[in-house]
Amino acid sequence: MAYLDRQTATHGDGLSESARSERAWSEFTASNRVKRLALTEHEAVFFEGDRAERLFEITDGAVMLYKLLPDGRRQVVEILGEGSLFGLQASDLYDCSAETLTPVRLRAIDRHDLEAIPDLLGHINQCLLGQLQTMHDHAVLLGRKSAFERVTSFLMRFVPKRGEVGCAGPAKDGPDEKVVVLAMTRQEIADYLGLTIETVSRVFSDLRRRGLIAAEKHDRVRILDICGLCKLTGTH
Amino acid sequence: MAYLDRQTATHGDGLSESARSERAWSEFTASNRVKRLALTEHEAVFFEGDRAERLFEITDGAVMLYKLLPDGRRQVVEILGEGSLFGLQASDLYDCSAETLTPVRLRAIDRHDLEAIPDLLGHINQCLLGQLQTMHDHAVLLGRKSAFERVTSFLMRFVPKRGEVGCAGPAKDGPDEKVVVLAMTRQEIADYLGLTIETVSRVFSDLRRRGLIAAEKHDRVRILDICGLCKLTGTH
Repeated sequence: MAYLDRQTATHGDGLSESARSERAWSEFTASNRVKRLALTEHEAVFFEGDRAERLFEITDGAVMLYKLLPDGRRQVVEILGEGSLFGLQASDLYDCSAETLTPVRLRAIDRHDLEAIPDLLGHINQCLLGQLQTMHDHAVLLGRKSAFERVTSFLMRFVPKRGEVGCAGPAKDGPDEKVVVLAMTRQEIADYLGLTIETVSRVFSDLRRRGLIAAEKHDRVRILDICGLCKLTGTH
Repeated sequence: MAYLDRQTATHGDGLSESARSERAWSEFTASNRVKRLALTEHEAVFFEGDRAERLFEITDGAVMLYKLLPDGRRQVVEILGEGSLFGLQASDLYDCSAETLTPVRLRAIDRHDLEAIPDLLGHINQCLLGQLQTMHDHAVLLGRKSAFERVTSFLMRFVPKRGEVGCAGPAKDGPDEKVVVLAMTRQEIADYLGLTIETVSRVFSDLRRRGLIAAEKHDRVRILDICGLCKLTGTH
């Protein structure tokens, strides 16, 4: 894989392009050019159509990006976690709204500052490529998956390293369980999965009846059979 | 708008960062490091899971990116035209397949070469931001729009400068018409819009019956009332 590795182009300082950009990013975000913000849950960061003067890096918590149709229908287009960037636009205005899902810590970066430091672009492009790939998967979910497949795919997002290439399967000893914190209301989940709130609730009830999940208090769900749930995602 | 304009950071050569990157991109793509390819319509460029050693720039024609579920369901995730880049990945493998829709001219760029020239990153960044914004709109279409709204939104893609912010409306004299070349089969349109082929055909028939479009030969459609069609997209 050495050929495809980004550790290829080196400079006089012996650093590869990607290492150079990551270092530039760390130095820049540690500087006093970057403002630190702490927001509570369900707080607006910006609205679609606002002037896109700042972008944001999530250092803790989760943020959703959404768009509204004029009649009020909402689609959550991205859910972003720690290390993600949002609010960087090709044009002058934000193309969607951003709202926190949990208490969130952000770094706010002036677009102007960013453009003055080309070394930062390597880090930003890597983030954007990751987001674009996630959006491709989400288009498959929205365009081609059933309600059951959408909800189970959503739950599997919270189980790292399972259900993807190289998944090791369940541990040999002990139950194949995990408690996940959704940090989203049923309505938000519905708006992310392109479903109605009634359909989301119905699927959750069905999964409980089948013994695949159990409800915990508040917005927690205990997955009782990770492999069994994963087989319903349409990806196998 | 000067503040938000990308023409801000300048160097000793008096060029802004973005102008510098665009010039670097032109020079690089004119060099003999870049291979030129000419493909016919419906030819595969690469498949999901192939090693992502090259990326591509479209200089003429249209390309679709799609993903398959194991049972054969397909979702077209992006449709790209002249000037677009595709095949650049955060990881080592292509996350989707690429196929030409029309005869296409491509520039094939070795990923390795790209990483050695940091000046190219600004151009790539702008392309990625544009694609991400289009994917946001497509998520709204797939997640929240009706079949009618999806098909009419798709048709309006082919009418530049209408139905978007600052749309001037129909010309005062003459009919509000346009002949558009879809360059996609009904099945491909269905796979892009998250619909069945029967639904796409039914909506086209309905639009003909309402006098909003007329079928031309092959894959051409004459839009007879651009404003009328636009009002059905759900965006107004």
